[in-house]
Amino acid sequence: MKTTEQPQKEAVMLSPEQLVAHWQGHRNLTRRVIEAFPEKEFFTFSIGGMRPFSIMVMELLGIAAPGLCEIATGKPATIDEEHPAVDLTKSQILELWDKTTEDINLYWEMLPIERFQETILAFGQYEGTVISSILYFVDNEIHHRGQGYVYLRSLGIEPPAFWER
Amino acid sequence: MKTTEQPQKEAVMLSPEQLVAHWQGHRNLTRRVIEAFPEKEFFTFSIGGMRPFSIMVMELLGIAAPGLCEIATGKPATIDEEHPAVDLTKSQILELWDKTTEDINLYWEMLPIERFQETILAFGQYEGTVISSILYFVDNEIHHRGQGYVYLRSLGIEPPAFWER
Repeated sequence: MKTTEQPQKEAVMLSPEQLVAHWQGHRNLTRRVIEAFPEKEFFTFSIGGMRPFSIMVMELLGIAAPGLCEIATGKPATIDEEHPAVDLTKSQILELWDKTTEDINLYWEMLPIERFQETILAFGQYEGTVISSILYFVDNEIHHRGQGYVYLRSLGIEPPAFWER
Repeated sequence: MKTTEQPQKEAVMLSPEQLVAHWQGHRNLTRRVIEAFPEKEFFTFSIGGMRPFSIMVMELLGIAAPGLCEIATGKPATIDEEHPAVDLTKSQILELWDKTTEDINLYWEMLPIERFQETILAFGQYEGTVISSILYFVDNEIHHRGQGYVYLRSLGIEPPAFWER
């Protein structure tokens, strides 16, 4: 029997633990999309004047850990808008991907639930709440990965299933 | 001064009202991507053997309102895996898009926060929680819309800015 000393816990739509697992699940799928690209085409293949998938992936790497680190620690982050040529191999980029996986988990632990509705300037310039910024990071990855799927299909390569994370 | 009769409200990472606004913001962007397609290419243009954007949009329409209606009301929904040819104009599809916008708002109002962590079988077959199913609906739209961006770029058409909702 409930007593007044034990208030009922409020229902939660989505917890921070569930959101970071959701994000990492998407990142795990993106990792397999990177793996599916042949080494050369990862850096060179393009449709309609768009960036090769490697450059999109470098953008994602430039957003995830630096953006979350800035949110969690206050350390300013910058976005490189120049999209420079990548002087790395696919396997080195996959290593950066895995390092980012660890970094996200580390910074996520530093983020109390009270912070998610706080207004911030992500990368010193994009105003929003912490949660809207993080959702943007995730959505931007899904968006570019979807473009990577078209590149793979156009190269005659079957991409990994979208629903497998 | 706080008293024990006024318990402090628990911090919320993301509210249901914010999530549906986020979803509708994405749907507003997808609407502008549909508008950006020339009538003919919307139904015929394809890369790498993928579906024309119109068929992807019909999939999104087949998921959003029927899927959320099933969640909110218990009325069973089915997914048409056949992807039949579309016997509609772009303007008729935009009308369905706007009708779905209203339907989502309607069904969302019927969904109390206590339901989001409930386990369900979406479309009678995909097991997950209500929240994971809804996130899947949104993510699937971002994924296919990203593919629509490649189609547009390949057609020499500038897509709407990703960050404008």
